[in-house]
Amino acid sequence: MNSFGEIFRITTFGESHGEALGVVIDGCLPNIDFNFDFVQSELNRRKPGQSNISTSRNEDETFEVLSGIFNGKTTGSPLTLLVRNINQKSEDYDKLKDVFRPGHADYTYQQKYGIRDHRGGGRQSARETVARVLAGAVAKMYLQSIGISIHAYVSQVYNIKLEKDYTQLDLKQIESNVVRCPDSEKAKEMIALIEQTRAEGDSLGGIVSCVCKGMPVGLGEPVFDKLHAQLGKAILSINACKGFEIGSGFDAVTMKGSEHNDAFELTESKEINTKTNHSGGVLGGISNGMDLFFKAAFKPVSSIRKEQQTIDTNYNSIDVNIDGRHDPCIVPRAVPIVEAMAALVLIDMLLRNKMYR
Amino acid sequence: MNSFGEIFRITTFGESHGEALGVVIDGCLPNIDFNFDFVQSELNRRKPGQSNISTSRNEDETFEVLSGIFNGKTTGSPLTLLVRNINQKSEDYDKLKDVFRPGHADYTYQQKYGIRDHRGGGRQSARETVARVLAGAVAKMYLQSIGISIHAYVSQVYNIKLEKDYTQLDLKQIESNVVRCPDSEKAKEMIALIEQTRAEGDSLGGIVSCVCKGMPVGLGEPVFDKLHAQLGKAILSINACKGFEIGSGFDAVTMKGSEHNDAFELTESKEINTKTNHSGGVLGGISNGMDLFFKAAFKPVSSIRKEQQTIDTNYNSIDVNIDGRHDPCIVPRAVPIVEAMAALVLIDMLLRNKMYR
Amino acid sequence: MNSFGEIFRITTFGESHGEALGVVIDGCLPNIDFNFDFVQSELNRRKPGQSNISTSRNEDETFEVLSGIFNGKTTGSPLTLLVRNINQKSEDYDKLKDVFRPGHADYTYQQKYGIRDHRGGGRQSARETVARVLAGAVAKMYLQSIGISIHAYVSQVYNIKLEKDYTQLDLKQIESNVVRCPDSEKAKEMIALIEQTRAEGDSLGGIVSCVCKGMPVGLGEPVFDKLHAQLGKAILSINACKGFEIGSGFDAVTMKGSEHNDAFELTESKEINTKTNHSGGVLGGISNGMDLFFKAAFKPVSSIRKEQQTIDTNYNSIDVNIDGRHDPCIVPRAVPIVEAMAALVLIDMLLRNKMYR
Amino acid sequence: MNSFGEIFRITTFGESHGEALGVVIDGCLPNIDFNFDFVQSELNRRKPGQSNISTSRNEDETFEVLSGIFNGKTTGSPLTLLVRNINQKSEDYDKLKDVFRPGHADYTYQQKYGIRDHRGGGRQSARETVARVLAGAVAKMYLQSIGISIHAYVSQVYNIKLEKDYTQLDLKQIESNVVRCPDSEKAKEMIALIEQTRAEGDSLGGIVSCVCKGMPVGLGEPVFDKLHAQLGKAILSINACKGFEIGSGFDAVTMKGSEHNDAFELTESKEINTKTNHSGGVLGGISNGMDLFFKAAFKPVSSIRKEQQTIDTNYNSIDVNIDGRHDPCIVPRAVPIVEAMAALVLIDMLLRNKMYR
Repeated sequence: MNSFGEIFRITTFGESHGEALGVVIDGCLPNIDFNFDFVQSELNRRKPGQSNISTSRNEDETFEVLSGIFNGKTTGSPLTLLVRNINQKSEDYDKLKDVFRPGHADYTYQQKYGIRDHRGGGRQSARETVARVLAGAVAKMYLQSIGISIHAYVSQVYNIKLEKDYTQLDLKQIESNVVRCPDSEKAKEMIALIEQTRAEGDSLGGIVSCVCKGMPVGLGEPVFDKLHAQLGKAILSINACKGFEIGSGFDAVTMKGSEHNDAFELTESKEINTKTNHSGGVLGGISNGMDLFFKAAFKPVSSIRKEQQTIDTNYNSIDVNIDGRHDPCIVPRAVPIVEAMAALVLIDMLLRNKMYR
Repeated sequence: MNSFGEIFRITTFGESHGEALGVVIDGCLPNIDFNFDFVQSELNRRKPGQSNISTSRNEDETFEVLSGIFNGKTTGSPLTLLVRNINQKSEDYDKLKDVFRPGHADYTYQQKYGIRDHRGGGRQSARETVARVLAGAVAKMYLQSIGISIHAYVSQVYNIKLEKDYTQLDLKQIESNVVRCPDSEKAKEMIALIEQTRAEGDSLGGIVSCVCKGMPVGLGEPVFDKLHAQLGKAILSINACKGFEIGSGFDAVTMKGSEHNDAFELTESKEINTKTNHSGGVLGGISNGMDLFFKAAFKPVSSIRKEQQTIDTNYNSIDVNIDGRHDPCIVPRAVPIVEAMAALVLIDMLLRNKMYR
Repeated sequence: MNSFGEIFRITTFGESHGEALGVVIDGCLPNIDFNFDFVQSELNRRKPGQSNISTSRNEDETFEVLSGIFNGKTTGSPLTLLVRNINQKSEDYDKLKDVFRPGHADYTYQQKYGIRDHRGGGRQSARETVARVLAGAVAKMYLQSIGISIHAYVSQVYNIKLEKDYTQLDLKQIESNVVRCPDSEKAKEMIALIEQTRAEGDSLGGIVSCVCKGMPVGLGEPVFDKLHAQLGKAILSINACKGFEIGSGFDAVTMKGSEHNDAFELTESKEINTKTNHSGGVLGGISNGMDLFFKAAFKPVSSIRKEQQTIDTNYNSIDVNIDGRHDPCIVPRAVPIVEAMAALVLIDMLLRNKMYR
Repeated sequence: MNSFGEIFRITTFGESHGEALGVVIDGCLPNIDFNFDFVQSELNRRKPGQSNISTSRNEDETFEVLSGIFNGKTTGSPLTLLVRNINQKSEDYDKLKDVFRPGHADYTYQQKYGIRDHRGGGRQSARETVARVLAGAVAKMYLQSIGISIHAYVSQVYNIKLEKDYTQLDLKQIESNVVRCPDSEKAKEMIALIEQTRAEGDSLGGIVSCVCKGMPVGLGEPVFDKLHAQLGKAILSINACKGFEIGSGFDAVTMKGSEHNDAFELTESKEINTKTNHSGGVLGGISNGMDLFFKAAFKPVSSIRKEQQTIDTNYNSIDVNIDGRHDPCIVPRAVPIVEAMAALVLIDMLLRNKMYR
């Protein structure tokens, strides 16, 4: 439920306006040098209030280590990381206490559990992803040490679409603008549209693309825990995500087999390569050593200032507009979360693959 | 790995040309009336050789029960179902023994395991889905008894696309044609295109759409085991699946929040409803009682008769054309498999939800 | 690894001299009234320094709630409980940094992980059981609300043995003395022996017996997760536990079938009962509604002041005597831990059993 | 439920008088040479009718392989092994259809599931252990290849007790007599007592001791999945098992710390050893490289010919005597089952330990 992974297994906890958000990592490899600055920098990438296209909330994102580190290294015991909640404005939510907000999980949580922490959305809030980013940062430390890097970026906001393939982009430019799009022209258009939409009290969705480089062959466990199936679950579990595709994805539908099949060829160093990468780096659920490539679709943020029709908890029809400090477009902030989830899948699959050696 | 589900937990086994394909269902509810005919009819829907647009292999799909049934009812003990393989032509695969077929998992299996059952693709073969359909049929029996029905259909083959929404379709027509498209005009076009492509020795992909009706509120477990995340994993684990979307899916990207949010309203019987269903029946990972709706993209079949460039197991570049009895378009036969996986997710989530009562 | 339970699933974290010890409970039922005082009182029962037969360490055992409670009730979201470590004297352990203490896990942790937090034993310390007692207290709250009570007591210390059967004891007397033996005469003997042994710088083991009353029929999952098998694992996982037996246990060996079989009979209220309870309340791994009864053997504490031969981390033979504040007999403090583990098994089995309804 | 192990994960299925008993092994290492004769010989050791001290049922124990083997080797795909039931005499059980047999799980199965396969005890029958022995044989193949051997033997039947320590026994003699006791004098006494008890229509319990040699350091996962905790669960899950102890076990209670602690010393080859082995080869839940030693207590068989008082399914008091072909003492046949469960724990812990490398 609140755990993910088979060996590198994380359990997240905490509510938007509770004491803290945190994660316990069980099955963490021992003897990883714990880089505090790196973890903090990852948290900062997810943090709200980074720019004028995101929410003005100034969430405190300084993390604490509760367990699992000794002399600067992981010990193999559960690693617990935590961020205290200190800038909540729960009173902002008082008037929403009895309202089922459209697009949110107020109604479904209430029905499922018979109780609901309405403050800031409680457990349904995307603030839970703080814990994922913390865990993902630990996973990335290890992946980087064995040469695997993960690069997510915004490839579409509403109708502004990056037509270029990831191979044509300079991935080092991703963090050069607030919308995290590696094409500076497109980035400007996206930013302008987000600002305009915010002014209108509305919101926008978009697409995050992600490429993982330095992939070994052999990650992924047939038949149900295929690499892209587990990755799909990981990504779809991120708040607001509505779709996932690996490699050619939905575009595969309008290709013929003779076009879609990636021909095998030998590199000069006599390694096996594919000429194209429609597979997205996965064959039969197992990584083939090519770049892992996938996309995730995010819906427009549900919290909008425009008036909406809904029901309250007493089953009265009411109208609601949702004030408060909300992102008009969550997609740029989803970038580090997508990377975190990808990192968690990869490290788990790497550890699972060790049994075959 | 070869198991799926937390409570209604299936484990599948068997290879394409081995002794048998089967499934053990652990956590099966006791006292379900086991309908042998229904299970057989589901198997028949998946079976190859149903029409001239599919493979001419005549796989024997008669199943056996090895355990878990007493006096025609499930007992709560592991339920084991099996289909013997009796019409394999393993010699067809002899010449492929040393070839890494493009688009297939020959290369990745060999690298991961250091051994590979090449006969009919071994464990990587889509014949494994026989076991899923068997288990799914059992799940369906229970779901039907509590009013939940699952309807998958082909909504696109290559560029022939069903523009109508599922609410405008007559779902009873799905099985009226071999391509399993509930629009008879589109079905004819699809069939014609598939036949033409077969003649060319090439293959086509497509989209399967699926709607589940009679959904209760409350299915799905935050935060990682969200209903659509688990469903996404289930569907993406089907051979050849490249993409999954829930509700509006990738189309959500070009909608604004004010358009996308589904307004809550009261029905005449004072139940909570949404006016639209962009969510696809899931809010915050929990079913909201509306129709569950999702789509899955399938790539064109990898086995084609056209000549392709590849590598053999001795790392020589070679050309290959893959003869044998292959489907030019797997999508119609994917329909019962998609339904089976959806049924497995739903029954598991139903059982998991019982702890809250 | 650091998790226990399938549905009511706990994950514990923390080291003896780290920041904190804590537990995340995933799968906690919603709407349980959270009784802070009760949880604190359970912690106090485990706390060191309760009497002059236990260690004089004054561990701070005030707990914090980090998540999962709203308006005094559980929400169904992960419940996180924590005790900060504030009275550690890590410098006491400096001289043991390079020593493999006999009977302890220093050597095996070092070999397994390649790193070891030596301060207070790190993760191997019995201080980890703080987290189990916290989680167990939550489980007990629920169990009590449905009429299940758990009573553990000390039935043997070294050679001083309580000969009476649990049915002949006044279980309300358990907490009336520091050794937690419900027979005051035996208790005095045990206390005297423990004090004498402490003076000698040596240590003692003993037996904890446990009875659970108000048991429903049907708990336990054949074939591997039998109630007593899961209970055995739970109890054996407690530090220093060397043996577990259910019902007649090892005494069953010297009984004949005609003696051992518990005859079924009808109660006046027409319920099924057994005349004797050699089974300990479990038939075929499933509770039969009789009292659940089991025993656990604990070895003498490994930390003793007497000189012992051992090896240091540089593989030199050395002699060591272990100063510091250690219990000469851990058994009385094991009582609440045994109860906690039993409660965790019972609540999990109760929730697992709900699927059959 | 019907699965055991985290990585080398077995799922057993089948009922005593159903079609078959079998096991699926998921997570089986690839490239193990599958030794058919060895598996058959292990099955034969468990088989009833081996001697005149066991049941005269002549169960057919020839196994089939359904999946997972290619060219005589395991492939890493699920390995499915099966024994068909061909000599059932279900009619023997007809008169027991409505009886809750004392000491058996008839009553608890009926209450838990609301349905019960009474034929031969259905799923509650010890015939289920056929599947465990099959899986254990595969585990042993691998363990033997890396130098780990497992030796269980009967150390007590009723009051006839083998006083010698395992180090004083010739373990090669275990299979030299039908009672599987490596001391031929004691074996004779045991056999005589069993024959006499059979004549009386009664039954006997006993103790199986087990030693595993060639143990590596590092197996076992703190804190809940300690090696001896997982082993305890495995052994306690065997039918009729009432107690488990590791190393000194319950005898530890009457030892002082100074006696019980195993002093570390260096071997001539500069490896770390302990002078004594009261720990039974486990420190803090992790193997320390010494022999793993444990004991299991088995109750007398519940099926006896003597008249017993009980209840029928209509809640009438009745008397019953249980005819049929039952073992008067199951303990000798439990020997290969204990070994199988130990092998399954060890291989799983070995694979889990690989993640740390």
